[in-house]
Amino acid sequence: MNASTIGTGVPQVNARAKVLGRAQYAGDIKLPGMLHAKVLRSPHPHARIVRLDVSKALALPGVKAVITGEDGPQVPWGVHKKERLTFAKGVVRFAGEEVAGVAAITEEIARDAIDLIEVEYEELPAILTPEAAMAPDAPTVHPGRANNVAHDIQYERGDVAAAFAQAHLVHEATYTTHAQYPGYMEPMATVATLDADGRLQVWTSTHSAHLVRARLASVLELPVTQVRVIQATTGGGFGGKMIEDANSLVAGALALRTRRPVRVVNNRLEDFLAAPSSVPERITLKMGMDAAGHIVAKEVRIVADCGAYSGLAPEVMHVSAMRSDNMHRNANVRSHATMVYTHTPPHGAFRGFGGTQMQFALNSHIDVMARKLDLDPLHVHRINAIERGETSIHGWKIGSTGMQECLTQCTEAIGWSAKRGKISGTSTKRRGVGLAAAMHVSGNRTIGNWDGSTVMLKVNEDGRVILHSSEADVGQGAQTMLAQVVAHELDIPLAHVHVALPDTDSSPWAIGTLASRVTIVAGNAAIRAGQAARDKLVTLAAKMLQVPADTLECREGTVRVKDDPSRKLTLAELARAHIWTHGGEGIQVTGSWDAQTQMFDKATIYGNISPAYSFAAQAVEVEVDTETGQVTVVDSFVSDDCGKAFNPLAVHGQSNGAAAQAIGWALYEQLHLDNGRMANGNFADYTMPTADAVPELRSGIVESIDPNGPYGAKGASECAILPGAPAIANAVFDAVGVRILDLPITPEKVLAALRARQGEAHA
Amino acid sequence: MNASTIGTGVPQVNARAKVLGRAQYAGDIKLPGMLHAKVLRSPHPHARIVRLDVSKALALPGVKAVITGEDGPQVPWGVHKKERLTFAKGVVRFAGEEVAGVAAITEEIARDAIDLIEVEYEELPAILTPEAAMAPDAPTVHPGRANNVAHDIQYERGDVAAAFAQAHLVHEATYTTHAQYPGYMEPMATVATLDADGRLQVWTSTHSAHLVRARLASVLELPVTQVRVIQATTGGGFGGKMIEDANSLVAGALALRTRRPVRVVNNRLEDFLAAPSSVPERITLKMGMDAAGHIVAKEVRIVADCGAYSGLAPEVMHVSAMRSDNMHRNANVRSHATMVYTHTPPHGAFRGFGGTQMQFALNSHIDVMARKLDLDPLHVHRINAIERGETSIHGWKIGSTGMQECLTQCTEAIGWSAKRGKISGTSTKRRGVGLAAAMHVSGNRTIGNWDGSTVMLKVNEDGRVILHSSEADVGQGAQTMLAQVVAHELDIPLAHVHVALPDTDSSPWAIGTLASRVTIVAGNAAIRAGQAARDKLVTLAAKMLQVPADTLECREGTVRVKDDPSRKLTLAELARAHIWTHGGEGIQVTGSWDAQTQMFDKATIYGNISPAYSFAAQAVEVEVDTETGQVTVVDSFVSDDCGKAFNPLAVHGQSNGAAAQAIGWALYEQLHLDNGRMANGNFADYTMPTADAVPELRSGIVESIDPNGPYGAKGASECAILPGAPAIANAVFDAVGVRILDLPITPEKVLAALRARQGEAHA
Repeated sequence: MNASTIGTGVPQVNARAKVLGRAQYAGDIKLPGMLHAKVLRSPHPHARIVRLDVSKALALPGVKAVITGEDGPQVPWGVHKKERLTFAKGVVRFAGEEVAGVAAITEEIARDAIDLIEVEYEELPAILTPEAAMAPDAPTVHPGRANNVAHDIQYERGDVAAAFAQAHLVHEATYTTHAQYPGYMEPMATVATLDADGRLQVWTSTHSAHLVRARLASVLELPVTQVRVIQATTGGGFGGKMIEDANSLVAGALALRTRRPVRVVNNRLEDFLAAPSSVPERITLKMGMDAAGHIVAKEVRIVADCGAYSGLAPEVMHVSAMRSDNMHRNANVRSHATMVYTHTPPHGAFRGFGGTQMQFALNSHIDVMARKLDLDPLHVHRINAIERGETSIHGWKIGSTGMQECLTQCTEAIGWSAKRGKISGTSTKRRGVGLAAAMHVSGNRTIGNWDGSTVMLKVNEDGRVILHSSEADVGQGAQTMLAQVVAHELDIPLAHVHVALPDTDSSPWAIGTLASRVTIVAGNAAIRAGQAARDKLVTLAAKMLQVPADTLECREGTVRVKDDPSRKLTLAELARAHIWTHGGEGIQVTGSWDAQTQMFDKATIYGNISPAYSFAAQAVEVEVDTETGQVTVVDSFVSDDCGKAFNPLAVHGQSNGAAAQAIGWALYEQLHLDNGRMANGNFADYTMPTADAVPELRSGIVESIDPNGPYGAKGASECAILPGAPAIANAVFDAVGVRILDLPITPEKVLAALRARQGEAHA
Repeated sequence: MNASTIGTGVPQVNARAKVLGRAQYAGDIKLPGMLHAKVLRSPHPHARIVRLDVSKALALPGVKAVITGEDGPQVPWGVHKKERLTFAKGVVRFAGEEVAGVAAITEEIARDAIDLIEVEYEELPAILTPEAAMAPDAPTVHPGRANNVAHDIQYERGDVAAAFAQAHLVHEATYTTHAQYPGYMEPMATVATLDADGRLQVWTSTHSAHLVRARLASVLELPVTQVRVIQATTGGGFGGKMIEDANSLVAGALALRTRRPVRVVNNRLEDFLAAPSSVPERITLKMGMDAAGHIVAKEVRIVADCGAYSGLAPEVMHVSAMRSDNMHRNANVRSHATMVYTHTPPHGAFRGFGGTQMQFALNSHIDVMARKLDLDPLHVHRINAIERGETSIHGWKIGSTGMQECLTQCTEAIGWSAKRGKISGTSTKRRGVGLAAAMHVSGNRTIGNWDGSTVMLKVNEDGRVILHSSEADVGQGAQTMLAQVVAHELDIPLAHVHVALPDTDSSPWAIGTLASRVTIVAGNAAIRAGQAARDKLVTLAAKMLQVPADTLECREGTVRVKDDPSRKLTLAELARAHIWTHGGEGIQVTGSWDAQTQMFDKATIYGNISPAYSFAAQAVEVEVDTETGQVTVVDSFVSDDCGKAFNPLAVHGQSNGAAAQAIGWALYEQLHLDNGRMANGNFADYTMPTADAVPELRSGIVESIDPNGPYGAKGASECAILPGAPAIANAVFDAVGVRILDLPITPEKVLAALRARQGEAHA
């Protein structure tokens, strides 16, 4: 019997706590004397604060503090550009920006106090579109930022002009993508307090306890050691809970001000206003192919909108501009991407991190061009796909790829060959199929020339283990993955590994959950930590059993002689004996792993940034109601090459979740700004797909066994969000012959396109 | 400038939190939905529980659970003999024993519910004295324990009979010592809850988080990994908060029963009933000296009373029987010590751990015999004292001793040579001086063949450090000591080291605070951890500065070139660079140290059990009111050889506290049992010395620089409690010529002795 669960579908180790309602989300934490905070937000996209009078709010019984840009934290924050204050000072730059915070003894009083704050604004002209931002005479969102450019990337590899000249087919089109709200179950929440020593202690819902700690320390002007961040159980993140919103800063600032615990829990509207949504991009793609369908040249122009503050959006655009280049063998690429500020709510990290935007354009484009060449898009994907052992145009080393198998799997599942190009459905409900493919990183060194992780294990006297890592489980299953690895390494039951929540005081330093990095980097670190623990156990057992260590194995909760399993010591016996001996100590070990990747040169932007790359392909069948324009996904199969699925149940769950979120982005979700003001910040009006809007989602796993992955694993299923939108767009075309370039694919747009096409046909 | 505070008087690192009322003692912890528990205790020293009806208590609104011996934990506990249930079942064995526990929504309701529990007892004959316990026909407190013997030690070394035969002077007397209540500021308190995963999480006031965890796991039948114990700020222990009372078990059992947080905070009476008091011993000491005052033979007979359950009392008696033998060069010792059960509240660990009892006898004896030989007791102490480099009769290796200096220092301070034997004071208020000396361990391997500790450090990106150790700061200053060591090793300000409270989930395994072990074992571990951190910092700095590591030094918060201090990197820069590099990781290191001592053989009881030995001597001047018998200490100077005083302020504080507690034991404190029932379980009737009852206490530090100690340090000031009582007894004799053999030295006893002496004189 082997206790390992690697490769077995197991429930998440924290599932029981969640379904029984016992998991402590940040908003569940209650401390004696705790205050509740609310935030006053700007109603204007751009205005000067002429007068701000908090005296009535302060006078309201139960109000303990009111904080504003004038007397609040004066150190600006931002991932790269420190340009945003916790509370706006002098000027507000988007409707929703934090203007003041109130801490009161109840949430109701805090809300009432917010209403008592008097602000006189002088409205200023607002830049609401990238076009307006880039206009020659446009006012600047931030002083000194010429043309409102937040970030600009230009690069060229190969000889693009020559390649286009020689291409058999050149096609150019402009695609527009829109912002998606992360839509997690749990809005952002923080409880902050001062501990006995006056240190700031924070429980928050986050992707990264250490990044939160660093930002709190910076903004609140404390040494990091004076800040303790504990990740509360986190109900989803999807990129939105990195450090691009002010929730934990508001809580921290008010806790320091009041010297009492302060709870800041967004309601849904507040969360819509506060959370970064994904980056809207307008992508002009020009691509050349030879007659066989090989991509020979590509030119990209991106104009992206980061909103009023840049946050992580420049990195997102960077990914949009470059990542998909690495999927294909094309050697000639030119790209220019510009990110501009507007007076709109900030955009930033989102599941897929910029990949979704470009993959929509690229996969739509491949479909169009394949049709023009009279080729099966499946064939075009196959012949262009980069293969194992190859190095991509930007220097990415492909250690594994399951792309061909993903393409086979999803197309077979959907009945691609039988359905593609066929008239299907009724006269008013037409069916079609679409295909798309994508790639993603599994880690990213360019965050700061390190892409590692450390896992700490404490082996207790019962032979069980407490695992400490600061990588966040935001719902994606990091805790389960880590427990599986250590249980595998020690061959003990999964339930014998308890995974502690990240705590910056005691958990090893980690970047956190982003770039699909946790399985590969923390998984490898967990293997090393497990091995370190096993080494200690085996070394001691060898001494106690008086046999050479290499004759022993760690199996079934024991260390035993391989050739005589009856000679054994339990891990519990060994853990105790490891203490109670000369030179003894409790077994407490760490394992670290850093990807052997490259921090690319800023000038060349060339280098192998990730230890492995994940691939995915998706095929969908849609039904288009030609009378209403309504598109319904009737079948969807996404194939995810995650290297090795530790936990197929989790991979399927994540892949299906990704597919659902992609369907939402492609068809249903759209943030409406009315003159810069959020008009649909609630789940009634912001229509995320509900169960009746999606088919029974199907997903498949492809295991390409990456040489750098723990047991071959790569990041699972973030890649699976990428192909959904273009697969749907392509299927719509297959069904009704109209090409939607502007997401989302709303009934109005489909209907308009159908009518335009009919008009053309009749003309 | 050197940032080290080693040798400097610094305030405790947790002092600010304590004096500002911010420190979280267990009783301060408040959790949502928390219940409050109270315990019903037996009113009888020995009775059969005929009927126990909790129905009325359960029916009281607000009561959530009532737990008894019948339905409570069925696994007995006890340090060595598992003989005590959390709640008595069938039989109660002392007045105060736990019979039932109630958890209710308020403390008041819990108390009311206790009153509603109906118990019918059949009173049984109670054994209330060791003499009764040892009577041939005595009933047994525990079935099967013949003659009620809980523990028996007999040993002989040398030729005791021959030595007595050759002795110039032989003196024999019997001394009786009484139980002392630990009298800490904070009564025992625990809050227990179940975490999200159903694990038992406990905050408690304790000497040892890991011993608490082990006992909770055992009694509540949980794997240790399913139990998390966090040491709350602890307001004194003095040995009483080891694992000899049921407080944390009651909380844990009720939390598991109710699945809600449960708070159990003793009030002072409950604490008097629940806490182990020190072990009362009757000691018959026979000692032989040569004419010069050298001790040549010793015979000891101890009868000790552990009360109804043995706990740690056998170990305490073991110390009484053997430890003081090691102070002197005497080669002939015979000892027989017997511990018996009685139907009285259990006795156990107490500051000094059995040393106080025997040192009272031994130092009284030395005084008597010196007088008989017409020698200055100071001289007798000097010529008998074991010296550095010697091995004692039981195999203890004396690596350092400051005994001679202690004797000099305290006697000079008190004016010994001028005052001894002189008539002093008024006719009714007579003054006299007394002297005593003692030794103590600094660690003890015999707990289980390990006497080590592990310290973990996390070096943060600000160059500051978080320190994790599971050794408890019960008020004695462990946190400050550990911070001082690490600050010294890294040469950073003391405030840059934050010491986390012990948490069994993350802090390294440790035995806890006992046997004066923490400074030496955890101090050495902290040095190693500090060195491990320094090694990482220096290795990286060598690489970054491109110089050999041995040319660098860690000074003033930097690593710098020794010969060119301008070439330097701050610890903050290095801590960050240690992450952000190929193969990087956050600096998180452990250091372990285990004393190179011996786990003695059970048969021979011979071996060097402690890495170092502390010594102390005390001289006092008393005033005896011959009309009332009242003894007042008018001057006291205790000299403590702690090897090296890291923090003289703390050593003086501990030494003066020890002297005060010794004065209390010698003169004022006495637990009164009325037919087995506690009669003075409150601070009005249990008269601990208040400020007006003690002189301005004085203490001195002797630094013998032990080769095994961290910077030469040994355990400080536990030894300082040992000489107080005999010094006072000897001073009383010096003042008025009466010898009190039976502690405490009450006015009644003094008056009676004075009258008896007058009677003798007149006879």
